[in-house]
Order: sequence, then C-alpha cells, then structure tokens
Amino acid sequence: MVPRVVFGRGSFDQLGDLLMPKRKNSEAPFIFLVDDYFENPEFLRRIPMLFNDEVIFISSKEEPKTEQVDALVNRIKDAYEELPSGIVGIGGGTLLDLAKAVSILLTNPGKAEHYQGWDLVGRPSLFHVGVPTISGTGAEVSRTTVLLGPKRKLGINSDYTTYDQVVLDPELTKTVPKDQWFYTGMDCFIHCVESLDGTHLNAFSQSYGEKAHELCEEVFLGNPKEKDGQDKLMMASWHGGMSIAYSQVGIAHAMSYGLSYLLGIKHGIGNCLVFQHLKDYYPQGVALFHQMKEKHGIELPKGICANLTQNDFDILSEVSLGMEALWENALGKDWRSKMDANRLQELFARI
Amino acid sequence: MVPRVVFGRGSFDQLGDLLMPKRKNSEAPFIFLVDDYFENPEFLRRIPMLFNDEVIFISSKEEPKTEQVDALVNRIKDAYEELPSGIVGIGGGTLLDLAKAVSILLTNPGKAEHYQGWDLVGRPSLFHVGVPTISGTGAEVSRTTVLLGPKRKLGINSDYTTYDQVVLDPELTKTVPKDQWFYTGMDCFIHCVESLDGTHLNAFSQSYGEKAHELCEEVFLGNPKEKDGQDKLMMASWHGGMSIAYSQVGIAHAMSYGLSYLLGIKHGIGNCLVFQHLKDYYPQGVALFHQMKEKHGIELPKGICANLTQNDFDILSEVSLGMEALWENALGKDWRSKMDANRLQELFARI
Repeated sequence: MVPRVVFGRGSFDQLGDLLMPKRKNSEAPFIFLVDDYFENPEFLRRIPMLFNDEVIFISSKEEPKTEQVDALVNRIKDAYEELPSGIVGIGGGTLLDLAKAVSILLTNPGKAEHYQGWDLVGRPSLFHVGVPTISGTGAEVSRTTVLLGPKRKLGINSDYTTYDQVVLDPELTKTVPKDQWFYTGMDCFIHCVESLDGTHLNAFSQSYGEKAHELCEEVFLGNPKEKDGQDKLMMASWHGGMSIAYSQVGIAHAMSYGLSYLLGIKHGIGNCLVFQHLKDYYPQGVALFHQMKEKHGIELPKGICANLTQNDFDILSEVSLGMEALWENALGKDWRSKMDANRLQELFARI
Repeated sequence: MVPRVVFGRGSFDQLGDLLMPKRKNSEAPFIFLVDDYFENPEFLRRIPMLFNDEVIFISSKEEPKTEQVDALVNRIKDAYEELPSGIVGIGGGTLLDLAKAVSILLTNPGKAEHYQGWDLVGRPSLFHVGVPTISGTGAEVSRTTVLLGPKRKLGINSDYTTYDQVVLDPELTKTVPKDQWFYTGMDCFIHCVESLDGTHLNAFSQSYGEKAHELCEEVFLGNPKEKDGQDKLMMASWHGGMSIAYSQVGIAHAMSYGLSYLLGIKHGIGNCLVFQHLKDYYPQGVALFHQMKEKHGIELPKGICANLTQNDFDILSEVSLGMEALWENALGKDWRSKMDANRLQELFARI
C-alpha cells in the first residue's frame, strides 16, 4: 500500500515541500515524467524544480511499453552521474505506470520485460511519487505497472512497484475531456464489478470495491456539483485500486488486454468496448454501464473488429485466454468448460 | 498509511514468513508484546519465535501509559546487546499503542512523554508489526499512539508511529467477550459519526468514514453470520481509522479523554458512556447507538460521576476543553460560544 498520501484541492502545490526531505544532494535531481497534455508555461511554473531537476514530457496517446521504459532509464543514466533523488509521475495511467517502472529499472539491472510477472523485482525501487491527473485507473495506488512488452501485456507486480508518496489533487482533473473522463471512470467501475462479482473476493476487497462502486454511481448517475464529482471520482479510483490490489479483475480486462495487444487500443476505452457486450456475465453491472453511457451521451466507436482476419482473432483469443487468473476469478476453477476461443471470437466480433 | 497489510481468516499463521526477511541477525530478536488474555500454551505455540525472541505478556486492563513505555524500553535495552529486529504488538488498542510507542522510543532518545504531540519524533522507529485481536479502535492503521502521561492523555502523532506491517486476521477476534466487542465496535462507530459530522471533513475521510459507518450498521443492526460479522467489523475498524487519520473526532472523544484521565476509564466504554447523552449534538448517531445497545442487550454502568467533587468536575472540564481541535471540529470555530465548563459539567453529571 502507498505509505504516504495527501488529499485536497490545490494539494499539488505541496509537492515541493514533500520532495525536499528526499533530495539526496544538489547533483541528484528529481525527474518529472509529465503527460504532454500539460506542456504549457503555466503548468511548468507549478512544477517545483530545483538544481538540475528535469521535466520530461511524454505522450499518453499509446499504452506504456517496456522498451519505452528502457529508453527512459538509459536516458536518465546517461544524463546524470549519480542516481536521481526520485521520479515523479504526473498524468493518467500511462504516465503513472511509466514512472513506477522507471523507478524500478533505475535500481534493478536488465530490461523492463524481465520483470513482467509477480514478485520478480529484487531491489527496492527509487523513491517515486505519483500525481494522478485523471481518475479511474487505480494506478496511483496499485502494486502493478502494466506494460506492453515484446511478448505480452503484463504488469510488473511487486511491493516495490507501489508509490512511496501520492498527491491526490482533484483540481488537476478539471480539464479532462468528457469522453476520456467517462472511459477512465468506467475503468474503475468495471474493476469494481469484476472484483465484487469474482470468486476471489474477501471482506477487505469487498469493502473497498463496494465503496468505489457506490461513488461511481454517485458520480455517473447522480448529479453531483462539479467539484464534488471530481473529488468523489478521485476517491472512487483510489478505493477501486485498493479493491483489486487484493482481489482480481475479470472478463472485460482479459479481453481488453487482447485488444490492447493486437490493436493498441487504450485500456479505458478498451474496457468499455468489451464490457458493453458482457450482459450474460455481469447483468447488473452492464445495465448500469448502459445507463451511465446514455446519461452522458457517450458514443462508443463501432466496427473495431469488423475487418480482422482469422489470424487476428486467434491472437486476440490467445492473449485473452492467457490471463488465466482473471478467467478463474470470473467463472470459477472450471472456467475452461465455460469459455473457449470460439465463444470468445463471437464476443470480439461484436465490438 | 500502513505500507503492508495481509487480510484473511488464519492469516496470523503467515506472521513467521513476514518477519523472516526483517530479521537482522540471530542476536537481534523480535519482541512480541501480547495481551495477557492470550497467555496460554496454545496461543504461545502460534507465535513464530526464533533465536532469542521474547514474548512479554501485558495486561490491557488499564490504558497505556508513558511510564509503562519507558519501562518496557529500558527492559529491552538492558536485556539485549543490540537493538531488536522489530516489535510485534498483538492485542487490542492498548497493546497496539504500546507496541507503536516502544518502537519509537527504542530509536529516539528520552522519555515517551516528550513525544506526545504532533510530529515531534525525529528518527524512524524500529520496524513494527500490528496484529489486532479486537475490532474498532483503528489503532492498527492510525498514525497516533494515545498515552496517558503525567500531565495529559495525548497521542504521539507522527509518520513514524504508523505500523510497517499489519496482519488482519478476523479469526483472532472470535473469543472477545460480548460487552468488550460492543464497546470497542462503538469506538469505531463513534469515530465515524464524529468525523462525518465534523467541520474538517474532506472527500477522502468521508469515503472511508461512510464505509466504516455502513459496516458498523451491518454488523450491529443487521444479522450477519458470525464469521461474516467478524470480517466486516475488522474492516470497519480499518476504514474508521483511515477516516480519522485525515479528519478529526469530536465531543465524545474530548469528554472520554477527561474520564480516562481522571477515573482511568478505558477508551471504548468511556466513549459509550459519553455518547449516549449527546443526542443534542449527534441526533442520528445517538439514536442508532441506542438501537444497537438495545439489540445486543448491553447495559452501561451508571452513576460513574455521581460522587465526584467540584474539583473533580473542574479537572474533567479542563482536560476535555483542552482538546481544542476536537471541539472546533464538532462545533465550528466559535465553539467557545457553544460550550463551557458549566454546560460540560451538566453532561458529565448524567454519566
């Protein structure tokens, strides 16, 4: 779990004070990895830079990749004589996951892809701080960083992945475009449905998942005031992330991983594209999803899988069915009797 | 926040594995501070002792005291040539608070009373693990350890107070006597009412407080199965503790601190004794409290303050009104216009 967190509108301005005691010396910079959406002088002035600190703006148009992590790590190692004081990730799931992975690879040898899996990280990561600017991914609180590698999309799951400090400032989310707000919020909602409906649930995850689910309903089906809605969705993301840290997601995530691997579709929208067709598996959750989608006038793209070849579908199925833990959580130990490549292809074909 | 937590029935048996990587060497023991309620061969066998580890059984009949902390620290320093590998607290709020304080005083010079207050601890505490055996105090997750000192009852509030690892095993709570189960559960419920009704509330604390409140209602007014009720009350305590970590309690706690200081009344029952008379301040919460009390046939002792002298009442008022932050949270910045020693004495006299 994240050992330190500050919450509040405007709390981003505390970042300088939070970093100060962690500065090793004037030669050991803080590296700020920032979504290039914020590449403007006004935001740059708010980043608490000192000494040789550096800001690296990164596009979040694509999912984070292992080779991107390796390139960032090499760039940082080449540029500085000693290890940085720490890494600060500012952005959505992509930036938060990149910053986590970079902090791990700065203190652990080899390539990022070697650590994809569970508890393969041997040494503590560099001090790292997460500042989410969009709510829903749960990346700010989770113990994983999900990367697209040469062979698979898989998380680096370890106790060293989790952020050392998180700054939750709902005000940073006020400029999120509506579609993106919806897709990323639904990432949280779908986490909760899958976790609460799963076979791996315990009272710990259940309590977090229920609270996040309730907050999503308030935000997407209630009529909260603007700031209140931003505050609540940030907390929904937090609790949703805590819920899956100790349980597991399900079918939408397994299928969305396939879409992401084959077609580079981003995680939030990928989950929505899949989840809308899963009423046989999550009837109540899917019904609520459609209500939310209609209430906010969201149109999902269609025909995503219309022109895929059989080979493409085979890849989709292979990647998706490879997420065994997710299927087991969703359908039980005998999940293979309930789902196979043919059934899965029917579902993908509707997207 | 607590960086590592395991949850689950029987998870206490993972304690040995959790401690192993933290053992510095065979000369640096783990010291287990255990509620003497568990002083029996069966439980002793479950404590994962190695090398020169030591178990110290401690009575939880009285509130933890600063001088008790100092005595324990001296005893440990005298007994071992080097610092222990860590401290493990096993018990209710008293034991959990003692273990936190001992871990701080083993690495920080001077007496425990010098650290009562906010952020006075300069050095990281010794590695410490908390294992609650009763649910409701929130001590397992909070950043304070509340101690009765020579001058006052006050917490050592610091980032180093929080446990490094917590083991949440609801099975350990199955032998709690019914009265104690109720009083300690109400500690959590009253936390939530005071925090949710307070003026310092933000969306972070609110979300935790609401979940804890809801779980308390399920446990004390619903009819959960036995194990389910134990699981849920343990999570209520966790979320309730998280809620007040970032907000503040109120009138019941301020008054209960007075009772505790003057009469040595324990925190859980003290909160109940006060809270039953606070319907003018927390109408809904107090109504629910009476429902819960009746449903479980709990009789609170009466006449506690019947024979107090005026001097006693003056001490009660002085200690209680000294908790300014709590009164401000409950009644707003102009709380002094709403509460004074006379009004307070009327309330105490009913107890």
